[in-house]
Parts: sequence; structure tokens; C-alpha cells
Amino acid sequence: MKIAVMGYGTIGSGVVEVLKINHEKIARRAGENVEVKYILDLREFPGDPMEDKISHDYQMIVDDPEIGIVVETMGGVEPAYTFVRAMLEAGKQVTTSNKNLVAARGAELVAVAREHGVNFQFEASVGGGIPIIRPLNKCLTADEIEEISAILNGTTNYMLTKMADEGADFAEVLKDAQDKGYAEKDPTADIEGHDPCRKIAILTSLVCGKQVDFEEIYCEGITKITAADIRYAKALGRSIKLLASSRKEGDSYSCMVAPFLLPASHPLCGVNGVFNGIFLRGNVLGDAMFYGSGAGKLPTASAVVADIVDMVKHQHTNIYIDWSPEKMELVDYKESKNAFFVRTSSDAAAVSKAFGSVEFIDIGMAGETAFTTGVMTEAEFEERSAGVAVINRIRLG
Amino acid sequence: MKIAVMGYGTIGSGVVEVLKINHEKIARRAGENVEVKYILDLREFPGDPMEDKISHDYQMIVDDPEIGIVVETMGGVEPAYTFVRAMLEAGKQVTTSNKNLVAARGAELVAVAREHGVNFQFEASVGGGIPIIRPLNKCLTADEIEEISAILNGTTNYMLTKMADEGADFAEVLKDAQDKGYAEKDPTADIEGHDPCRKIAILTSLVCGKQVDFEEIYCEGITKITAADIRYAKALGRSIKLLASSRKEGDSYSCMVAPFLLPASHPLCGVNGVFNGIFLRGNVLGDAMFYGSGAGKLPTASAVVADIVDMVKHQHTNIYIDWSPEKMELVDYKESKNAFFVRTSSDAAAVSKAFGSVEFIDIGMAGETAFTTGVMTEAEFEERSAGVAVINRIRLG
Repeated sequence: MKIAVMGYGTIGSGVVEVLKINHEKIARRAGENVEVKYILDLREFPGDPMEDKISHDYQMIVDDPEIGIVVETMGGVEPAYTFVRAMLEAGKQVTTSNKNLVAARGAELVAVAREHGVNFQFEASVGGGIPIIRPLNKCLTADEIEEISAILNGTTNYMLTKMADEGADFAEVLKDAQDKGYAEKDPTADIEGHDPCRKIAILTSLVCGKQVDFEEIYCEGITKITAADIRYAKALGRSIKLLASSRKEGDSYSCMVAPFLLPASHPLCGVNGVFNGIFLRGNVLGDAMFYGSGAGKLPTASAVVADIVDMVKHQHTNIYIDWSPEKMELVDYKESKNAFFVRTSSDAAAVSKAFGSVEFIDIGMAGETAFTTGVMTEAEFEERSAGVAVINRIRLG
Repeated sequence: MKIAVMGYGTIGSGVVEVLKINHEKIARRAGENVEVKYILDLREFPGDPMEDKISHDYQMIVDDPEIGIVVETMGGVEPAYTFVRAMLEAGKQVTTSNKNLVAARGAELVAVAREHGVNFQFEASVGGGIPIIRPLNKCLTADEIEEISAILNGTTNYMLTKMADEGADFAEVLKDAQDKGYAEKDPTADIEGHDPCRKIAILTSLVCGKQVDFEEIYCEGITKITAADIRYAKALGRSIKLLASSRKEGDSYSCMVAPFLLPASHPLCGVNGVFNGIFLRGNVLGDAMFYGSGAGKLPTASAVVADIVDMVKHQHTNIYIDWSPEKMELVDYKESKNAFFVRTSSDAAAVSKAFGSVEFIDIGMAGETAFTTGVMTEAEFEERSAGVAVINRIRLG
């Protein structure tokens, strides 16, 4: 089996490396050797062992009948979408690690693949090396998945873990994460939650079989989390985690990305550092969790190569993926229900007047009153909190 | 699709229930309706809604060309083996939840299924509802799995959790587990580790593609764990877990079932109560963990029904499972290396004489000396510990 890799960055070079490291095992699993014939990239890589495979022309790959599988690790929606679509239409199978492409065009590309009797797979687009896409499509098929709560961004989880461990403040740990290469120069997609937002849109789409648009998911990052919030979390026996969540409500879903205060007993509470965890609840399975490296060169490449093996074994069979382009109308986030932890500069009397009976928490922070509320809709919380001067509020998980 | 269920006990009736509860969703996923035509059981079930489907004659199922899939939830090796083999030879697909059957005859039944162009699947035989068999076969195909460490028995994990939470002793929590229906009247298979031993044999077989005989795995249960051990564990900041483990060593594997003292940072340390957890390490994936309900009627049935859905979609295609009957010779357990926690009635001088430099732990237990050793082979440990009077010893994870 001859393949092409589009995009020779971190993941693309990881795919080449994994195919080399585990060459024999992969050949045994796939039933034949897997060999990289082209690497598509705008750049040159003088001195690289794969130098002679570099190509700048995607049409050459489209036109080469020897190429059966194409790996897309370029990132971004364009030109990835154009290239991937052309490959599928030329009868080639495609695997991608690109969450932006899958969130924006996944349902469509699944349909194009089906029309052409090939496969479009994307295990690495969510949760890095953690098997989650294939388990949802192939393993949890007996269940109605009622809830997904997931830590899907390793950068922010690293930052929150470090804040909790060291009492450090946001700006400090962001700089550390950037120094370590976990966070990019422009960290917006991570710290504002845009990355996990796309990922939970993909997972929810697979759970309901329809198109969930990430643009319609309420999304809040971790930029407002301070060392003081972490101190309160510890007093509450909880950890702050950036959760991407999805809950079935009637025939629809309530989705959200936001920091949550999780109790120590929650399986996601122990997911620390750059690791990811995907907790889900099935109506017959009950609770389950998948844990592992949510990013990184080799773990992510491991998921891409698992797709390659699956596709070598399904060269002439479309593996059914239940994801139609029909749009799933999400529940308005203002109707979703949560309990809240709130810090305010108002006094206890004002809090009680606005919220009624609450539980106050005093850790000796001057000039503020902190409390937790019962469960209410986001709309109700907004209304009630208008009566106090909120410093910060975090939902309780 | 018409199916037959062999064995109308807890899991078998759970399968019938799951097919009913999620009927529509399962039909959409499978591409057709799944209907139970026969239930094979020695007993009668007067008044049961499925009463008229009860059959006492497996040959009737073998001979009925309408039956495409057979579910085996009888337990035990015989007559399950005879029945399953006959079904496969008659061109029917089979899924089983029966670890005894799979550990003893799995490789053979995989081969029989392949010969007849059908499938033999067994997702529910390990880890109950947790997807682990299919992830190993279909998802982690790019990796060399170097280690599996797993909590595969919910009964003993419930007991150890309760001992840790309440300081209770073994006999007391065993009675409680029996009262709650988690432990059987004869709890041997659970508390002596025979159940996780078969399960780790199955997982290791799938990892190496050869037959791992459970009889050759060193197996130690939890019957020697006392409230005193739990007190020491807490002093060490660790939890005692019954681990089934498998480590790649050269071209072979070192397997063991035994209680281990796990540090709080280990992902399995937070797996409490009746839950199971399967931690694994791939050479490119790194660390991953699968967590969920390892037993119970509906979770286990969920895994069986996921097999059914997969088999409906592969009615005329054998899904390749890499498990040959060729025997894998395991590393002699005496050569496997561990660090140990030891309690002895000998004094510190005798301990130092036997073990050299160790770390002593004093929690004020009269009449004993406790310590932890460095890493050594089991053989070396046996030799050294002959020089002291050992009360108990537990390996460090």
C-alpha cells in the first residue's frame, strides 16, 4: 500500500516516524506493507531522509493510481478541504488529524467518501492518541449516549494543573506553557476554548448522527481563572477543569465549553497535566472514561496510523459512519442547568436577597463574599446575579 | 436479523433487555431490526414475556437457517464450547461474554469462525461494558503494547475500596459483598484472582497474537490483605489494588495477578468500588486508560449488543482477529522484577542483614518491622526473605 502524507509538520512527520518504528507490526496488522510515496508540503526539507518524497503539487497525488490512502495533517479548513475532497473523488481513502476540517466539513466528507466507496476517517481529530471516534462508531453502538464531559485540551489542562499545584497565576503559567511548547505564541484557540469547542461538536455529531455546528456552542475559556479561584477550589475539595460537555435533553443536546469545579470523586478530576479524558454515560453502559495523551507528535500519529491500518483492511468497503449533514438544533444554552460557585464584592445580605438560600464559603479573602448556589438555568443565574457585583463565577460539575 | 440467546441468566436477560430498551437506535446502527427468536436454557420461565421463545434444544438453533447470530451467555467451558463451535460450523456468527470459554478456547474458535467466513466476538468477556477487545484489535493497531496493568475484577475492587474507606477487615467486607450480590456464595474465582487471571490471558493473547495460557500465569488473590496492610498503605500514600498485569520483555511477556500498592498519581489509583480500569502503555501512544463498569447486567449486555451490531454489519465478512493457537511461552515469574513492601516479625537488624539497605516504615504496630525494598527479581526476593519471618508482603506498583 502506497500512501501520501499532506503536511510535513509535527503530526505528519510523526506519522512517517510511527510507520518506521512499528513497520513490521503494522504490516502484520494491516496485511501488507505501508509505504510513504509522497509528502506534500510547501517547504523543502534538505537533508531530511524523506527529502526525495517531497512534492508541492497535490494534483500529482490525485493522478497517481498507486496511491490508495492519503493522510491529511496540514491543519485549517483550506486548502485541506479542497485537497481531501479531490482525493476522495479520485477514489482514495483519507485520514485526517484536523479538527477544524472535521468540525466544519466532516458530515459532507463522510458523504463524499460513501458516494465513492472509500473511507474518510478522523480518529486523531479528537483526543489525540486516545481511541474515541472509533469506539463511538463501533463499540458504543448499543447505547444511547446521554452525556459526554471531556477534558479535550492538553494545554489548558496543563495550565490549570500547574495553577493548582503551585498556586501560580494565569499569566505566569501561560508563559511557562509557551516556553515548554505546549501553548502557541497566539494561544487563543486553547485558552479561549475554541479547540475543545470544535472537538465536542464532532463528538456530539457522532452521538446524534447529525451535524452539530461548533459556532452554536456556548464557549468560555480559562482566562478569567485566578490563583484566588484555585484557593477556593481547594477549600471546596474540588479541581477546576475546562470541560467540553454535551448532554442529551429530549431530542436535542445541550453543549457547552467552560471551566467547571469537579469533585474529587469525578473520574475526570484525576486527569492532570497535558493528558485528556473523555467521560461518558450511556443509558445501559453507565459511566465510562477514556484517558490518554490528547496531543503530541507520536500519540496523535498513533491514531492516524490506526486509521491507515483500518483503511488498508477496508480498501473496497465503506465503513458506515452515522453522521448526516442534517443540522441538529441545540438547546439554547440559557436553558441549560447548572449550580454555580460565585465570588462577589457585594455583602451577604445582598447575596441572600438576590439568590435566596445559598452556601457561603469563607477562606478569609478580604472584600469579597463567596458562595455556591443550587441548580438553576443559565438565564435564571444571569437574572439573579444582576443583583450583586460578581467578581467571578464557575459552574459546579 | 433473527438471533438466539444461549443462557437466560443475568447477562442473557440483560441482552434481551438492552435490545428492547434501545431497539430503534440499535436498528439504525445495525441497518436492520434485531429480533430474539430463541432463548436456550435448561429452565422454564413461566410468566416471562419471552416464555414462548425458550428452547431446550441447541440443535434446533443450529438447524434454523433464519438464525444469523448466536449470543452465548451460559458461562463455563462446557457445554458452551460444543454449542458455540456447532453454531460457527453452521455458518452462524457468535458473540460471547464468557471469559472461561474465551481464555480456554478463544484462539481455536477465532480460527473456526475464519474457516467458515463468520465471526466470533467476545467484547464482554473482559472488562464488562468497557470497550477494550475491539480497541485492542481495531484502534491500537499502530502500537507495540508494552504494558497492560488492569483492575479487571469489580468484586475484589469493591472489597479493597471498602477496606480502605472503613478500615474494615477482609472477612467483614466479603460478607458485605456477598449480601449485596457482588460476590458469589463461593467467592473463590474472585478473591483468589482466577477471574482476572483469565482476563489478562485474553488481553495478552490479543496483544501478542499468540495463545497465552492462563494456567501459566502466577496468580495471587486478596485473601491475605488485612486492615493492618491498609493502614500501612495509607501511611505510604498508596492504595492496594488487585492488578492483572502483562509486560513485554524481549519477545515474550511477563504476566501476573497480585495485589499491588499503587501511588496516588497512578491512573488506576482512582478506580474505586465495582469499577474496572485498564491502563496500557504503547510504544508510540504512551499511557492510556479505559475505565467503566466491569460487570453488571446492563453494562455487560451493552458490550454483547455492540458485538451483535458489528456482526450484523459484517454478515459475510470475517473481521480479522490476530490470535493464533501457537503458544506464547511466558517469562518465568521468578524472573519478573518488582519492589516490595514487607511486614515481618523479625527486627531491623535481621531485615538489614537479609535485604541490605531498605526503607523502614513505622506506624506504631507492636511486634513487627515494616519496610520497602528496591527492585529485585521474585527469585531474589524469595531468597532474601527466607532470612526474616514475613507476616505479609505486597508488591509496589
